[in-house]
Amino acid sequence: MNILLDLSFDGTRYCGFQVQKNGLSVCQALQDGLEQLLGTRPDVKGCSRTDAGVHAGHYALNFWADTRIPMEKFPLALNQKLPADIRVNWAKIVPDDFHARYAAHAKTYHYHIWNSQVDSPFNASYHHKLPGLLDVDAMNQAAQLLVGTFDFTSFCSAGCEVAMRGNTVRTITQCSVTADGPHVVISVTADGYLYNMVRILAGTLVQVGQHRIQPQDVIGILEQKNRGCAGPTLPAQGLFLARVDYPQDL
Amino acid sequence: MNILLDLSFDGTRYCGFQVQKNGLSVCQALQDGLEQLLGTRPDVKGCSRTDAGVHAGHYALNFWADTRIPMEKFPLALNQKLPADIRVNWAKIVPDDFHARYAAHAKTYHYHIWNSQVDSPFNASYHHKLPGLLDVDAMNQAAQLLVGTFDFTSFCSAGCEVAMRGNTVRTITQCSVTADGPHVVISVTADGYLYNMVRILAGTLVQVGQHRIQPQDVIGILEQKNRGCAGPTLPAQGLFLARVDYPQDL
Repeated sequence: MNILLDLSFDGTRYCGFQVQKNGLSVCQALQDGLEQLLGTRPDVKGCSRTDAGVHAGHYALNFWADTRIPMEKFPLALNQKLPADIRVNWAKIVPDDFHARYAAHAKTYHYHIWNSQVDSPFNASYHHKLPGLLDVDAMNQAAQLLVGTFDFTSFCSAGCEVAMRGNTVRTITQCSVTADGPHVVISVTADGYLYNMVRILAGTLVQVGQHRIQPQDVIGILEQKNRGCAGPTLPAQGLFLARVDYPQDL
Repeated sequence: MNILLDLSFDGTRYCGFQVQKNGLSVCQALQDGLEQLLGTRPDVKGCSRTDAGVHAGHYALNFWADTRIPMEKFPLALNQKLPADIRVNWAKIVPDDFHARYAAHAKTYHYHIWNSQVDSPFNASYHHKLPGLLDVDAMNQAAQLLVGTFDFTSFCSAGCEVAMRGNTVRTITQCSVTADGPHVVISVTADGYLYNMVRILAGTLVQVGQHRIQPQDVIGILEQKNRGCAGPTLPAQGLFLARVDYPQDL
């Protein structure tokens, strides 16, 4: 049967979701757990690659396996075999042709910034620290201009395989910046992402918040199709995959 | 001059605020930083002892020192000398007779519970995990019954020096239980606390939330003046000192 899992993980000590030659991946840790539980090591299809150090509130993946464990008991059983920084929230049997990556029609990422002269002693691995006060309203104005279907080449790190093949058009359906005291969150929902896209978008919105560029400048940055025009790639630890959307009839 | 500091700290690796023979205290780490900054090691008056592993969103303390550093620059200067898990939020010159403990007329603590079958992979050192679903409404009913002036002997750990001296009456001005998804927070404001009082209150409210006792049973527990009647002392890591109140004219 084809099983869909919803995971949360703290990505701090992982090289990302995808199996890599150097470094422990979330996928590998999960496969180790599945192998202990099921006696076989299934191939796992993740909803996206995530960078080293990126976290997930909800990450979706699927795999094929035969098991008599009822799906409502599967999370508890598998969690006993997983490290504490990876947790399965729920499990579900899905149609045979379901693929966690190809079936996803939207993914939402949150980028967390601690915006205060004084660092927080808490959660150092869950946000990016920026002491200078950000203009959140200006960031939000810029965020609204990024909603739509655009060529996001300017927001894609060099070496991006997809860019080489020219598939650099994506649709952002929601982009917003909110502040709760010093805690600033950039939220983006899109049908897909280029390599480092959210971290570069966040770095560019931060430049708007620092008044180094104007909100409307993001339009020009998009039009340039040149990575050099956009802001810096912010560090991985502030980034969370917050949500993956699948068709409702799933 | 008499200087008041507002601190946040992650208490995980400390034996509490107070200097202890065995183990590193927050006070000691702070005094080390002050000594590096000022060249003298001031005596520090904390607003309360905190247990090992307890955190603080806002902890108040005062000390006497001569310094030319303006108070608005003092936090930045001192933070450079402190470990990253202790941060000074602000500094202020206060009247000569101010004492952080005696001047405080109320302190608010929050106890954080992660109430889900599935643990969170995040923030393991900032909450207590309880898998069985808690009845938050019942907990809240019980919490309301604890608002008032009572003898809290039943909510004081054995060996409490204050209890020996009979000063076991305290006034709780606010007590509530709220849930945001699996994140349950018990909030208590009182003029003072007995040893382990919040952790025992939280343990007793959890028993109400588990339907092991009824909300109105907390009245009987207070009347018994017997530690054995109340619930267990919950672990330190879920506890935060959230706020210390001083007279407004300060």
